[in-house]
Amino acid sequence: MADILEHIRVVDFSRIFAGPDATQILGDLGADIIKIEDPEGGDECRYLGVTREELERLTGPSPSFRALNRNKRSLTLDLSTESGRAVALRLIDGADVVVNNFRPGTMERWGLGYDDLHQRKPGLIYCDFHSYGPVGPLSHIGANDLALQAFSGLMSITGEEGGAPARAGSAIVDLHASLAIVGGVLAALYHRERTGEGQRVDTSLMLSAAHLMSYFYKEYWLTGRMHRRMGTANHLSVPNQAFPTKDGYAVIIAPSDEMWRRCATALDPEALDREEYRTASERLRLRKDVIAAMTEVTGKLTNAEVHAKLSAVKVNVAIVQTIGEAADHPQLDAVGGVFHFPEGEGDQRYVGTPFRLHATPGRMHRLPPELGEHNREILAEAGFSEAEIAELKARGAFGD
Amino acid sequence: MADILEHIRVVDFSRIFAGPDATQILGDLGADIIKIEDPEGGDECRYLGVTREELERLTGPSPSFRALNRNKRSLTLDLSTESGRAVALRLIDGADVVVNNFRPGTMERWGLGYDDLHQRKPGLIYCDFHSYGPVGPLSHIGANDLALQAFSGLMSITGEEGGAPARAGSAIVDLHASLAIVGGVLAALYHRERTGEGQRVDTSLMLSAAHLMSYFYKEYWLTGRMHRRMGTANHLSVPNQAFPTKDGYAVIIAPSDEMWRRCATALDPEALDREEYRTASERLRLRKDVIAAMTEVTGKLTNAEVHAKLSAVKVNVAIVQTIGEAADHPQLDAVGGVFHFPEGEGDQRYVGTPFRLHATPGRMHRLPPELGEHNREILAEAGFSEAEIAELKARGAFGD
Repeated sequence: MADILEHIRVVDFSRIFAGPDATQILGDLGADIIKIEDPEGGDECRYLGVTREELERLTGPSPSFRALNRNKRSLTLDLSTESGRAVALRLIDGADVVVNNFRPGTMERWGLGYDDLHQRKPGLIYCDFHSYGPVGPLSHIGANDLALQAFSGLMSITGEEGGAPARAGSAIVDLHASLAIVGGVLAALYHRERTGEGQRVDTSLMLSAAHLMSYFYKEYWLTGRMHRRMGTANHLSVPNQAFPTKDGYAVIIAPSDEMWRRCATALDPEALDREEYRTASERLRLRKDVIAAMTEVTGKLTNAEVHAKLSAVKVNVAIVQTIGEAADHPQLDAVGGVFHFPEGEGDQRYVGTPFRLHATPGRMHRLPPELGEHNREILAEAGFSEAEIAELKARGAFGD
Repeated sequence: MADILEHIRVVDFSRIFAGPDATQILGDLGADIIKIEDPEGGDECRYLGVTREELERLTGPSPSFRALNRNKRSLTLDLSTESGRAVALRLIDGADVVVNNFRPGTMERWGLGYDDLHQRKPGLIYCDFHSYGPVGPLSHIGANDLALQAFSGLMSITGEEGGAPARAGSAIVDLHASLAIVGGVLAALYHRERTGEGQRVDTSLMLSAAHLMSYFYKEYWLTGRMHRRMGTANHLSVPNQAFPTKDGYAVIIAPSDEMWRRCATALDPEALDREEYRTASERLRLRKDVIAAMTEVTGKLTNAEVHAKLSAVKVNVAIVQTIGEAADHPQLDAVGGVFHFPEGEGDQRYVGTPFRLHATPGRMHRLPPELGEHNREILAEAGFSEAEIAELKARGAFGD
């Protein structure tokens, strides 16, 4: 079976997280992703978050870069030069999708903005990714994942009750935005397939964060209510949080009255299966009491004991795992969530496509590229002659 | 301009968060979403997280239900009855996409599993959404957002350093999974448009969470390193966290050396623009010192002062906003992130589609439905006669 997007070419000017992760997913589905990188070091993600010493030990780019850049070919172009931009234009002529995350106005300044490219190639799908969006009072402010966790109100409801705000430990706004880009581009490809028309797609860290906060905003707009930080608990039901055990923490969720009854009976009927805790609304009202009673019970048990007792009666339970326990858990591999790819002396593992198409599954075709690894190959494919390449090189298209 | 999916019909058996949010987005793009609900109360999300008293005050479903169920019509069906299932089958005959989030085996038991429906209608796109996936050792365990925040390791890196694990304050794994469903369904629709073939799509809370953790898993697989909780900070760069101010918290991010220089100069050159802090790797090594120095400086300023000083020199800065400040911020409305819809005496607001298609934008067509609001309309459209409806009703298809 052919890959879904095997006939699609993406020219990808994006860097760091959301854009690269999105084009990686398009690459999983078979699209040819040409990653345009600055000759001076390339995508900053190549060395983000690692010291020089670590980077040398790794003999290759940072773990984050590797996680987000499989299935791509790398071409270095200095877009500040006319010759670099001329190469970009010629590649776009042979492409279906352009993705970028420069600040508003940058691509336009280079003659690579939507209006220019749409005129040149009406079927092109052009995707902008910004911090706060292309218009509005904040459009020219740069931001990252953390800034949007703060701006969106997510941080105001993350952390201990009465404590300082905390961040969700991963770049969730960025990686969520990746799937918003994927959704927008796929919708536009579908529309183009039916009508022949390309169009502009955009999203932003702000739209991504707002989507993650949508039900809180709706509640605020409807009732004026704003939730607060509650550790691992939330306002929806009780119990619905992590409880300390002898050897760690276990999350226990029993929202319905039937599930609570099973939970209480399995853990300690005397302490928990009490008349006053039997309805969801009463458990919400008596939150503190229920949590104190649960905490006393779980503190006498190990993670494994809590898990065994509750999963036996189909109460939602999960251990607070480390990154390593989660990454290595056989369930992730069992459902195709891990790509294994030959590299060096063995296989390396990568987190797979976040959805599975059974007839045309996403897969890993290529290792994350070295900077400029495919310059010659891509230019030759695009019809540049040796003489032209030499000329472009002399004019600085590929850096010094 | 017609909506992209205006010719697409989705029969949606999903409940609570991820599935309904995904079909809402397909509805934003114009698809006709038929939401199948249990006659006994319908989607549990209708009353999730609100007390009976609050629900009466709201005169309608919960804020969460409203946030996730615009652009749908509601049909009540008792799928435990043969007649209810017969109605479902007839609706699916006229549909393009089926979405469900029952536990593995449930749809199959009802004769509504992929194999049955694919045989009946090869062009159908059939989307399963599970907790841990359709196969593997955990496939039959139920879970929710919180459980996957724990299972995935996200919770192990969220919260204060040395403190208890915390959860990201919103149901981010669920809402992220929504976009994975949207991506999978759109990819399958694109493939069907080109080949006529339908297929099975699936994703899960686990694949969603793994995607949000992908770069941490990659680092662990590559180096064995596992990160820890760091409040609002992270391991990527310094400064990159929230700092307390006179009247709240401000997030400040200056990853590059140039940006750090501007940050230090704008806030307090004497205290911050020091030789030993000038390179990113040194700031990572001297993390504690840099953070202490920054904290002392920001503590003497208000949020507004920090924001003004840093945004003037293009350093990434954001205030830790409340939910209300975020929801009402004019930037969200400016980029089309808010749908305004007439309801009662004025307009109500809803968080919009998380990506924008400029030629064919998502929009709000309908209010979230009342339970069974469209029974008669949907059945009539599907060609059921009055006599048939009465007969089905007598056989319990629509509940008692």
